[in-house]
Amino acid sequence: MKKIGVALLGLGNIGSGVMKVLQENGELIKCREGMEIEVKRILVRNLKKKRSVEVDPALLTDDFNQIINDGSIDIIAEFMGGEMPAFTYISEALKRGKSVITANKEVIAKHWDELEEEAKRSGAGLYFEASVAGGIPIIKPLRRSLQANRILTLMGIINGTTNFILTRMSEEGRTFEDVLSEAQRRGYAEPDPTADIEGYDARYKLSILSTLCFRNRVRVDNIYCEGIRGVAADDIKYAKELGFGIKLLAIAKKLNGKIEARVHPTFIPLSHPLYAVRDSYNAIFIKGDMVGDIMFYGRGAGDLPTASAIVSDIVTAGQNNGAHHSFRLEVEKPEIEDNWIDEYYMRLVVLDKPGVLAEIAGIFGRHNVSLDTVMQKQRDHDHATIIFITHEAREKWIHEALEEIKRSPAVISVESLIRVER
Amino acid sequence: MKKIGVALLGLGNIGSGVMKVLQENGELIKCREGMEIEVKRILVRNLKKKRSVEVDPALLTDDFNQIINDGSIDIIAEFMGGEMPAFTYISEALKRGKSVITANKEVIAKHWDELEEEAKRSGAGLYFEASVAGGIPIIKPLRRSLQANRILTLMGIINGTTNFILTRMSEEGRTFEDVLSEAQRRGYAEPDPTADIEGYDARYKLSILSTLCFRNRVRVDNIYCEGIRGVAADDIKYAKELGFGIKLLAIAKKLNGKIEARVHPTFIPLSHPLYAVRDSYNAIFIKGDMVGDIMFYGRGAGDLPTASAIVSDIVTAGQNNGAHHSFRLEVEKPEIEDNWIDEYYMRLVVLDKPGVLAEIAGIFGRHNVSLDTVMQKQRDHDHATIIFITHEAREKWIHEALEEIKRSPAVISVESLIRVER
Repeated sequence: MKKIGVALLGLGNIGSGVMKVLQENGELIKCREGMEIEVKRILVRNLKKKRSVEVDPALLTDDFNQIINDGSIDIIAEFMGGEMPAFTYISEALKRGKSVITANKEVIAKHWDELEEEAKRSGAGLYFEASVAGGIPIIKPLRRSLQANRILTLMGIINGTTNFILTRMSEEGRTFEDVLSEAQRRGYAEPDPTADIEGYDARYKLSILSTLCFRNRVRVDNIYCEGIRGVAADDIKYAKELGFGIKLLAIAKKLNGKIEARVHPTFIPLSHPLYAVRDSYNAIFIKGDMVGDIMFYGRGAGDLPTASAIVSDIVTAGQNNGAHHSFRLEVEKPEIEDNWIDEYYMRLVVLDKPGVLAEIAGIFGRHNVSLDTVMQKQRDHDHATIIFITHEAREKWIHEALEEIKRSPAVISVESLIRVER
Repeated sequence: MKKIGVALLGLGNIGSGVMKVLQENGELIKCREGMEIEVKRILVRNLKKKRSVEVDPALLTDDFNQIINDGSIDIIAEFMGGEMPAFTYISEALKRGKSVITANKEVIAKHWDELEEEAKRSGAGLYFEASVAGGIPIIKPLRRSLQANRILTLMGIINGTTNFILTRMSEEGRTFEDVLSEAQRRGYAEPDPTADIEGYDARYKLSILSTLCFRNRVRVDNIYCEGIRGVAADDIKYAKELGFGIKLLAIAKKLNGKIEARVHPTFIPLSHPLYAVRDSYNAIFIKGDMVGDIMFYGRGAGDLPTASAIVSDIVTAGQNNGAHHSFRLEVEKPEIEDNWIDEYYMRLVVLDKPGVLAEIAGIFGRHNVSLDTVMQKQRDHDHATIIFITHEAREKWIHEALEEIKRSPAVISVESLIRVER
């Protein structure tokens, strides 16, 4: 029986999950894969801390050198989170020919190039299925099942916290602040929820996914990012009336050789499979030139789902005897499109008097923006709310039109601007 | 550059799709995978037939011996359909050490054991991603991404024709016969639709999927099978009122060491991700002990989606140099549970007079069946329609109760019995 020596970096939530999977299903993996996974060392910050899983205290160390210099360790699995010192450890491990499994989206999004180079040089393997969408198999299917396709579009719900918040707002008619504070009380959202709410978490993951899809390096700063703080209960209500739901989508497309990548709240039709992705679930919807539409759905976070992906990567690395399956880029620096084409939903508050609508429609027209839907909603004293959905238009035309619209004395405020995908 | 010599068996819909994928994306695959796939021969029945793809006529042959004896052919990809002669050709190819890719669900469902043995003996590879759910990656994710999980449940929409019919019935309030004849006119359903409508197609696929999930051989005749011919427009209407949709599901579960596997129309909640799988799309929903709920969605048929899976398998086989990754069963002959536990929807027509409901409820009670929902629907002269949904009950209790209910003089007919999954 093949034996694989593994060191774990981290024994928090995910590390404990990995221990639990190995303890409960280790025998099953042995029988299925003919491979015994043996945890040799576990790097922790605090040797004395009480742990939620049963672990032989002799395995614990707070010294990375004891791991990197241990010849019986073939694979290092990292889930400490954060850029440093995780990046240093991963890099060092690859240099020394140890294969690395990581759940660290930030390290992969920022340092994939360098790590890929290290892996190529030493021949060690680099695996990161758990860095995106937790337990959902997506990295391996993209690389090993969809390789005959040119990927055209990717749309993902890849942040569970924001999807939970938007689902509760939509199904219970509540406000963002209300649901956020409940989510925080119940531990579904961090005490500082910025990384989730503002879309930064999704942006790291989209950088990894879009680089994989298009085989072009899409860097974090290539990705437009807008969070869900501005999504009002009213927008969700009007969206439904128009046959849409609002989701925080991570979107990447390749059109005419240019890549666009963006994270923002998005209208999608109620009949779209992504709309049915509720609460903290994640899903990645992909359009390939041959396979057509395809979607992967599941738990995007959590100890055991994430551990499922990590242990799978450990098995794969063990089967490959550390051999690195190198990832070929098609173009090193792709052209990034920031003036993309979309449809747009807008909610304006205007003076309720004749001629206002004509004036606004005229401004849109002068900026090349044609309107698909116009609805006058509630009236309040001398104010009226107007909803627009445009036909396809360039991002810049919309912003230029809105600048001019804002200057009109008849316009009180532009309350919302939300992109529409179908 | 590695060169892989491939022979195609069949140049119909799928074979033409494979040629198209190789012609359009062959360069891309070369660049990504460092591998050139060269089609050496194509087996056809009729050498003179006009083809929808451009193919060098010198590649065509109607003699399998020219393929099996050609040393430059490493891989044989089969998509002739039907059990014979496909099984003979596949078996022969494996014997001679040529790796096989097949889209043939019937051959795999019936002969997997023998073919697996051949592959093990000769060391050739056997791949069949395209045999289930067309372009959706499911075989490889089950084997290569979810290997750390004990699979508890699988529920699949794995027949596009029936899902198309049920979607149209549900969304347009039409009858089964009406939608079926439209589907036939438009080529979405076969002139003889029996294999789809009666669930036989889904049963082959479920045999393959459940064998993979549970690592126990689940044979075609282990699977209960009921088609959609009996689903009435009224059932769909009442289902919706109760918060459910009706789908033809292929279901497999492993409980207390016993496996149950069944294909039948099923009530699922409108909020279930499988409900959002519309028209001819397929999806496979899996519950693993570690990963939790997970779903794979996409095109379950069609030339290009299926070809996407086949070409992916060709690439994998090429990378493995033909090495067979053998599939270990846990138990050769699993115990099959046919008296499973479910909830049940029933629609009865009864005499509209006092005491009837009490009588029926009494019969259910005597057979251990407790009721969750009882609704009296339309009245028609002296007849009334009554809808029941039960709590969890054993399949046999329900049938025994219904036998007794049918004998009551107050009961005109039992119109429907549909199982409910949540």
